[in-house]
Amino acid sequence: MLKTPKKKMYIYADNAATTKMSPSAIAAMVVTANEVWGNPSSLYTTGQKAKEALEQARKNVAQIIGAQPREVYFTSGGSEADNQALRSAAAIGAKKGKKHIISTAFEHHAILHTLKALEKEGFEVTLLPVHAEGIVRPEELAAAIRPDTCLVSIMTANNEIGTIQPIRELGAICREKGVLFHTDAVQAVGHLPINVAEDNIDMLSASAHKFHGPKGVGFLYVKKGIPLTNLIEGGAQERGKRAGTENVPGIIAMVTALKDAEAARETTAARLTVLRDRLIAELSRIPPSALNGDPVRRLPSNVNFCFEGIEGESLLLLLDDLGISASSGSACTSGSLDPSHVLLAIGRVHDVAHGSLRLSLGDDATEEQVDYIAAQVAQVVEHLRGFSPVWRDLKEGKRQFIL
Amino acid sequence: MLKTPKKKMYIYADNAATTKMSPSAIAAMVVTANEVWGNPSSLYTTGQKAKEALEQARKNVAQIIGAQPREVYFTSGGSEADNQALRSAAAIGAKKGKKHIISTAFEHHAILHTLKALEKEGFEVTLLPVHAEGIVRPEELAAAIRPDTCLVSIMTANNEIGTIQPIRELGAICREKGVLFHTDAVQAVGHLPINVAEDNIDMLSASAHKFHGPKGVGFLYVKKGIPLTNLIEGGAQERGKRAGTENVPGIIAMVTALKDAEAARETTAARLTVLRDRLIAELSRIPPSALNGDPVRRLPSNVNFCFEGIEGESLLLLLDDLGISASSGSACTSGSLDPSHVLLAIGRVHDVAHGSLRLSLGDDATEEQVDYIAAQVAQVVEHLRGFSPVWRDLKEGKRQFIL
Repeated sequence: MLKTPKKKMYIYADNAATTKMSPSAIAAMVVTANEVWGNPSSLYTTGQKAKEALEQARKNVAQIIGAQPREVYFTSGGSEADNQALRSAAAIGAKKGKKHIISTAFEHHAILHTLKALEKEGFEVTLLPVHAEGIVRPEELAAAIRPDTCLVSIMTANNEIGTIQPIRELGAICREKGVLFHTDAVQAVGHLPINVAEDNIDMLSASAHKFHGPKGVGFLYVKKGIPLTNLIEGGAQERGKRAGTENVPGIIAMVTALKDAEAARETTAARLTVLRDRLIAELSRIPPSALNGDPVRRLPSNVNFCFEGIEGESLLLLLDDLGISASSGSACTSGSLDPSHVLLAIGRVHDVAHGSLRLSLGDDATEEQVDYIAAQVAQVVEHLRGFSPVWRDLKEGKRQFIL
Repeated sequence: MLKTPKKKMYIYADNAATTKMSPSAIAAMVVTANEVWGNPSSLYTTGQKAKEALEQARKNVAQIIGAQPREVYFTSGGSEADNQALRSAAAIGAKKGKKHIISTAFEHHAILHTLKALEKEGFEVTLLPVHAEGIVRPEELAAAIRPDTCLVSIMTANNEIGTIQPIRELGAICREKGVLFHTDAVQAVGHLPINVAEDNIDMLSASAHKFHGPKGVGFLYVKKGIPLTNLIEGGAQERGKRAGTENVPGIIAMVTALKDAEAARETTAARLTVLRDRLIAELSRIPPSALNGDPVRRLPSNVNFCFEGIEGESLLLLLDDLGISASSGSACTSGSLDPSHVLLAIGRVHDVAHGSLRLSLGDDATEEQVDYIAAQVAQVVEHLRGFSPVWRDLKEGKRQFIL
């Protein structure tokens, strides 16, 4: 039986799936909805006030990521931004007869599924390996680029295992070879330092709800001179490249959250790194288990482990009972029975990948929380192993340990 | 000189462009953002609570429009819904070798521009005339349907002149001929009675910010059995047909606004119809002028006039000074110098179409407001005509009156 903790805590440790909107972002959304609610395309004062707020928001985003305001397009989120970036680069490539795209095996499905669709339309896709550490090797990118490569799309930080890619180096290779470079920075914006100019990024996708902004809002950075293809046709909003009345309250809320995240970024990262490493150390005491992805080159909030002999789903449900919200793989695919494509990409076999746990700490995480999580994970893993036929087989030597 | 009104009023009369979010919708958004902010795809309690709220919202929308919950897909707004509906029908048609689409000349640009894109991809498009009254004739639709017609898309109510189409009859013709029928109901949902089953509608687009819900949220109704094509690829949200973490706070706010709109719909419509007709009668006293579109079969909130001899833009700016927010054509194209395609479609010549004014009353409009609007429009039109070389030519007989 599981022991009820003396002091039950409630800890949301799935900030990679979504974050709670900050009070300041909510306040900004409400103030905007009440006071700057006009249609930015309208000529009268109420509309022009909304237009000004929108353009100020664009300047703020641009400044934070090192871009020009005209290079920032607001979207309904990261998935839309990813789709539009890939579709645009593909259209540019197709015009020049270049129909080869390079990406990685562990991208978000917003990338991988769009690439699948492009393959059906005649594009060829190379997925780079990410190796056991979950990191793309620049020399492998350089070797994969061909004369007909029109796009390289590599995420800044992985959404499941949190590993950080050498974006600047990868971007430099693309720039040198004259290939467009897109990065899905949904997990990175607001959490890692990003400067599109210095990092050689041509296109970048971001999502507000990953940094305490609202859901349903994101942005796409596109370097000046790169022609965008509309995903949504219609009105002339967003320089004619994204139709639909602009969600000004949502956009202002996003920018409010982004400014807050940027202001606190370095201190938060330093604090979380210590907590992350403490949690990794604690969870390593539940063998056979293994940290997924590079221990150092990863998001300060991300801990991802495989525990042998158990099912991730049962682990999550019992942790939920103990007050801990965590995930196994990404939220976007949680309905699926397949093991995480990310864990398979770093070489975990099916049996082990099934027993995975992603913990993504909140900005306000504490040592007490981390210790609570470690203690509860330990007792739940032990409990589940007690019921597991796989674990029995492992103990009885009928099956070989993998980790 | 323009006379400053004795009592200056501030009247937002551009509710067709956007509406102010209702206090109850804002409250619902805040409560949801604070309390039901989990990712609906997550297994733990916080996520499942969000999932339940999302599915309850889907049921509510379905009930209001006479659909099944599984037929409702949440989107980032009306434009996205329009694009996805048309792209899906086109994909279904292409598979069967049917590449003919019927629409009308005065659709929203979310429809017309998507159709233009489809034309480039080999589809043939027939745009039905809407005649002086701004209404499609069912017999003309019946005559236009060909064996290779895969889709008919006709808006429920026009966004500029507010004319209401005989949707049920048009839908019946499509159903009889086995052609998919989509309607852009962005101006109608929350304002007119709609029942997708009784009205023979296969696909319907709606947008929350047109009925006091939030911007950046809408929905697409798609009759069971019609396969959707993804506009946004990625996670498995919305039955795998619309990727991206669901904007639960925005969706709940939309549903709150929609319920309120539905509850008040009949009373509001009756009240506004009286005010609309009063305003039409008043503006008719500023000749030469003409109401655009059918006087009866139009949205209870919509008044659209052409005044000969003036420029719509100057009219709007002076009305703004006098406290009235109004538009000329639709907000989505206000940056453009071209005359409204809607007014051209009902047979207005360029010169006259330029001098148009759309007034779309708010639910809380009063007789006093309507009289104020009429008085200010009268003095502004007179004022502008005093400066207008076109008006001088008309008065001196060098140019012929059109209206």
